[in-house]
Amino acid sequence: MNDTPRRGVGLDALPLRENLRGMSAYGAPQLEVPVQLNTNENPHPPSAALVADIAEAVSGAAADLNRYPDRDAVELRTDLAAYLTGQTGVEVDVDMVWAANGSNEILQQLLQAFGGPGRSAMGFVPSYSMHPILAAGTDTGWIPVDRGADLSIDVEAALAAITAHRPDVLFLTTPNNPTGHVIELDDLRRLIDAAPGIVVVDEAYAEFSPSPSACTLLAEYPATLVVSRTMSKAFAFAGGRLGYFAADPAFVEAVLLVRLPYHLSVIAQAAAGAALRHADETLASVALLAEERKRVTAGLEALGYDVLPSEANFVLYGPFEDARRAWRRYLDSGVLIRDVGIPGRLRATIGLESENDRLLQVSAELAGTEITTTRERR
Amino acid sequence: MNDTPRRGVGLDALPLRENLRGMSAYGAPQLEVPVQLNTNENPHPPSAALVADIAEAVSGAAADLNRYPDRDAVELRTDLAAYLTGQTGVEVDVDMVWAANGSNEILQQLLQAFGGPGRSAMGFVPSYSMHPILAAGTDTGWIPVDRGADLSIDVEAALAAITAHRPDVLFLTTPNNPTGHVIELDDLRRLIDAAPGIVVVDEAYAEFSPSPSACTLLAEYPATLVVSRTMSKAFAFAGGRLGYFAADPAFVEAVLLVRLPYHLSVIAQAAAGAALRHADETLASVALLAEERKRVTAGLEALGYDVLPSEANFVLYGPFEDARRAWRRYLDSGVLIRDVGIPGRLRATIGLESENDRLLQVSAELAGTEITTTRERR
Repeated sequence: MNDTPRRGVGLDALPLRENLRGMSAYGAPQLEVPVQLNTNENPHPPSAALVADIAEAVSGAAADLNRYPDRDAVELRTDLAAYLTGQTGVEVDVDMVWAANGSNEILQQLLQAFGGPGRSAMGFVPSYSMHPILAAGTDTGWIPVDRGADLSIDVEAALAAITAHRPDVLFLTTPNNPTGHVIELDDLRRLIDAAPGIVVVDEAYAEFSPSPSACTLLAEYPATLVVSRTMSKAFAFAGGRLGYFAADPAFVEAVLLVRLPYHLSVIAQAAAGAALRHADETLASVALLAEERKRVTAGLEALGYDVLPSEANFVLYGPFEDARRAWRRYLDSGVLIRDVGIPGRLRATIGLESENDRLLQVSAELAGTEITTTRERR
Repeated sequence: MNDTPRRGVGLDALPLRENLRGMSAYGAPQLEVPVQLNTNENPHPPSAALVADIAEAVSGAAADLNRYPDRDAVELRTDLAAYLTGQTGVEVDVDMVWAANGSNEILQQLLQAFGGPGRSAMGFVPSYSMHPILAAGTDTGWIPVDRGADLSIDVEAALAAITAHRPDVLFLTTPNNPTGHVIELDDLRRLIDAAPGIVVVDEAYAEFSPSPSACTLLAEYPATLVVSRTMSKAFAFAGGRLGYFAADPAFVEAVLLVRLPYHLSVIAQAAAGAALRHADETLASVALLAEERKRVTAGLEALGYDVLPSEANFVLYGPFEDARRAWRRYLDSGVLIRDVGIPGRLRATIGLESENDRLLQVSAELAGTEITTTRERR
């Protein structure tokens, strides 16, 4: 009955959606390299106490693994609300918080509820590279608007673009990945005032910045503003995949309509709860990283590099004559950083002191050959 | 500067997508009731040895929680492939297996890749209630086709519907939830032969059935067939959220284009790996449940109920004069079963022996008042 088994028919043999044909899968290279400064991870591993607490919490939760999790993750959201209240100084309640498997899932759910076919999302590029991918995955039109010459948001141009295109979803990323820029609260207000749809302020790197959170504007813009966050960066929880947002409770009601039931495992809920109990300890590493950012910035500048002003755990710097070639030379020297596709610039995550030393060392070696001098550049 | 804070503007104040307006969030009631037989969970909790193994695996993985997980979950997929090879007798390799946070995410990814705006998915209803919800969430047109009078698939009518509507995605659920019916392999072949797009055979309950898996047809239909599975039921891992599929490697390439990067946490990967190492022990409970299903079926039939022939861990039975009222009476007696919206019928998960005894006891109490006699029904 069976024909000769055939395997590996190839993607072209499948009736893939037209808009996906020819695309490549997203992803920074996952390479084994001594110094990994490419995905903005927190270089400080969890403490032994935190690991033990996670194991204990998971062990407790695992006794009921045969049962479905709390679909609405109320206990975890309560903990996240308490953390956010403390971190931002804004009173945030459990019914204003939603959690999912990473902020990617958070943003996907928001696009499913407020974007989709016939609707559009706008972002100011270069910014988080997943925004257009998530838009494509939800068939939301994507409207990229270029940042200013210094790669910060040109507010006047942004306002004009919002008025012209009227996006249903506006992404504002502060601090912005990959540039590190923050948006001042007054500018945020002007942008939100102009937005005809919802505004998602992506604060994945908020803990690294001394600037006030957009959460301070939630009461002013209850029907417009969503502030998204992640535990991947400051919480050193990238492997745990826990993103969340704060907004008016109506936004939680909205994503309940599109979220996959039981999307967040009991294990994820338990582990994230344990990580939140260790917030003070973990966030101490954030202060260290902010100090190191200053040191790396000064070191790179002393070598003749131009470094964008960053309030995150990375720096974007250059100018390189050929960013791809320079990226390769860092890699050959055992330092993996990120070519984010901006001509002449590379992004380096702030690592441990020794890793940053190595970054500066290789940067010094390259300064003689790869860097474009200011004179050549102009 | 701040106006009086406003909270709880209500869903109507938000610019929600039109097709979501008026919808209610999915979900079986999560109630605290002594006997929970409503979500087809495996009633046997994980053994102490398995809980310890999960805690140890998670503890090991947690040491690197500051790093992103393996985006492609290669180790876990290798373990799943080995399990599936043993369970189905079909040689399945790692490059034929994909994993995600529950089979809901698996099905959503398949719809994102092969469904979406302008495309359609067909299912034979009543079936898994998430299929139309996932279709709506991905803006895929949904074509429900009624099953036959006995609630099994009427193959001739199904073939006619496939030819008439030409769905891009065809869902076939075997054993089917909520009826328990299986589709014979020869019927599966006829349906797949007729399908113009991809065919997703949803085998969430496969381990409870002695019938051969659709995996035996993978080599015949490499460009068409996807077999989806879950660890929620047989593996007693509902809280862990781990779904997967087996198909030609091209299907894995396809979902890589739509999956959220790092969708599966290191913790989920580690915990699922531990659960797979205990497969033999866990699946022993499946044999017990299959025996209990026979006993419950015989018991209900002896009380005068009509029970559909089930190869899953639940039974659909009746006829009740008013299914909603009967459901409420079970609940009042401490037994939570499921009203799946089929007139005159209710679905009960097979539980522990004592839980099944209680189900039969309450069923006996109701038999005198709630059951529709054959005479009245006709």
